[in-house]
Amino acid sequence: MTIKATLLPALAASSFLAASLAMADDGLENYRQRFEALPYLPPIPADNSLTEEKVELGNMLFFEPRISSSGVISCATCHNPALGWADRIPRAVGHDGQVGERNTPTVLNSGFLGSQFWDGREPDLEGQALGPIEAPVEMAMDLEMALERLVGFELYQEKFNAAYPDQEEPITDDNLAHALAAFQRTLNTPNSPFDRYLHGDLEAINQQAKDGMVAFVDNGCIACHRGPALTDSQFHAIQVPGSTDLGRYVVTEEESDKYRFRTPTLRNVAVTYPYMNNGATETLKEAVAIMGKEMLGREFDDDTISAITAFLNTLTGEMPDFDVPALP
Amino acid sequence: MTIKATLLPALAASSFLAASLAMADDGLENYRQRFEALPYLPPIPADNSLTEEKVELGNMLFFEPRISSSGVISCATCHNPALGWADRIPRAVGHDGQVGERNTPTVLNSGFLGSQFWDGREPDLEGQALGPIEAPVEMAMDLEMALERLVGFELYQEKFNAAYPDQEEPITDDNLAHALAAFQRTLNTPNSPFDRYLHGDLEAINQQAKDGMVAFVDNGCIACHRGPALTDSQFHAIQVPGSTDLGRYVVTEEESDKYRFRTPTLRNVAVTYPYMNNGATETLKEAVAIMGKEMLGREFDDDTISAITAFLNTLTGEMPDFDVPALP
Repeated sequence: MTIKATLLPALAASSFLAASLAMADDGLENYRQRFEALPYLPPIPADNSLTEEKVELGNMLFFEPRISSSGVISCATCHNPALGWADRIPRAVGHDGQVGERNTPTVLNSGFLGSQFWDGREPDLEGQALGPIEAPVEMAMDLEMALERLVGFELYQEKFNAAYPDQEEPITDDNLAHALAAFQRTLNTPNSPFDRYLHGDLEAINQQAKDGMVAFVDNGCIACHRGPALTDSQFHAIQVPGSTDLGRYVVTEEESDKYRFRTPTLRNVAVTYPYMNNGATETLKEAVAIMGKEMLGREFDDDTISAITAFLNTLTGEMPDFDVPALP
Repeated sequence: MTIKATLLPALAASSFLAASLAMADDGLENYRQRFEALPYLPPIPADNSLTEEKVELGNMLFFEPRISSSGVISCATCHNPALGWADRIPRAVGHDGQVGERNTPTVLNSGFLGSQFWDGREPDLEGQALGPIEAPVEMAMDLEMALERLVGFELYQEKFNAAYPDQEEPITDDNLAHALAAFQRTLNTPNSPFDRYLHGDLEAINQQAKDGMVAFVDNGCIACHRGPALTDSQFHAIQVPGSTDLGRYVVTEEESDKYRFRTPTLRNVAVTYPYMNNGATETLKEAVAIMGKEMLGREFDDDTISAITAFLNTLTGEMPDFDVPALP
């Protein structure tokens, strides 16, 4: 594992720990090497630098219900910080109580994903941010009207000016999206027990979780759930119980994309239930069994399911600091 | 003003300040004596002691959307901490996007009110707490089902047991209400500029606000807006523009209660717009003019409106500390 210059000091401390514990190996070094610890920050795009001003503005906008047509739905309604930054119901409930087609993905660590939405229809968080504002079953808001409402508040004029100092009229859809994306790139959950284990604290996870890690690798789960966010960000066909969702086909209309969904992250999977694109799977154990059957053609036995579940439970990291903003 | 034993140390410091500044009087001592500073805590009822465990549980329940039938509306949806613990829209939007009849009152300092709801139909926060959960236009939830959902979470079983240690099955509607009420009694906003002024810091508010305080007393606003929360908690008849709401008559069916509403608190009035029972009044200045006309039969001139508004702006206190809880 390379130590990058961008990592924060705490990580250096962990590396030191790794060195000091190197003598006490648990014999699983070859397995650990298949994984990557979660960095403190995802890649930051060149055209959306992560400034304090933009993050502060994005934080405000994330909690701002008046950019919905009802005036009561904000990003934080479905991406609720009290609920793992998701909603813990099968499918999202939005404008006028309408129920969407898919389970709300958490925004935690979403900056690590190679594309956004279950069907990957947007390449990045900048592309994703405005979707739910305009979606008729979510915030159901006309974007022009959302911008007008923001212009109506002096505080937003001030904060947009601070975030985009070179622009004369900075309250634009692009800047709204960029600020939301910048804020979301700060919502990461490093230092999970599994990350501490990868960093060399061999007692950060118990033996059952280690068995689960081994089973996760040996059974091939890691083929798709890999990299720092435990997703390859690729599309794979799956029809989970109760789902008729065509997945990525809806975006590309390519026959080969039928029922394909982007591999979801497994980071914080224990606190982002229910599971699958239709949210019909309530428990992690059921989810593990279904994935074994559907994706790997295997009937996991109870011990394997329990072990993999124990492993998945070690992927819950430190929840991000954030402020409930004082809105104008 | 009596200094009570329950007040926190900061208040003692303010009193010291008061003593040290007593020489520099601004000649308004007789006006100041008409007001009461906001204590740190409202009266605590004998049958609902304010324990840490109950407040923590109440904090969780306040942010818990799964005690609504949609699973996405919590107390904090309309009593949004980002929006002065209210919603800043004219009338509440609840279940399936239904719009209620009245403007959402802030929960800030609500423990200081002599009754709850615009029409005072409940005597206290314990009586108030379950109303919005069951109201078909708000959270639209069957109370039995809400309790069942809570029973389904081990963490709630633990937290209810901790809050009500003497009870075998503590997840009851009464205990739900008591915990919510206990949490809400901690949502107070002491140390506003006006409170600091009352405590002796004569420069905590400017001359225009002092003129406003004088106008507020001399014009008789203080007849109803008095006491620590600036409400007499009595019912007064008023028909504001656009409202046909019968007010307290709906509760008592007494002819004399037609159009009567409990005097709202003026604490934090600057951050809890829009105004009046129907939320049809957008600005504080309009609200002051309307109240002068409707309640006092006076046409305030522009200077008086500006001064009273400046005074009202000094009533915004320190927002309460709270946690966005990690829900199960």
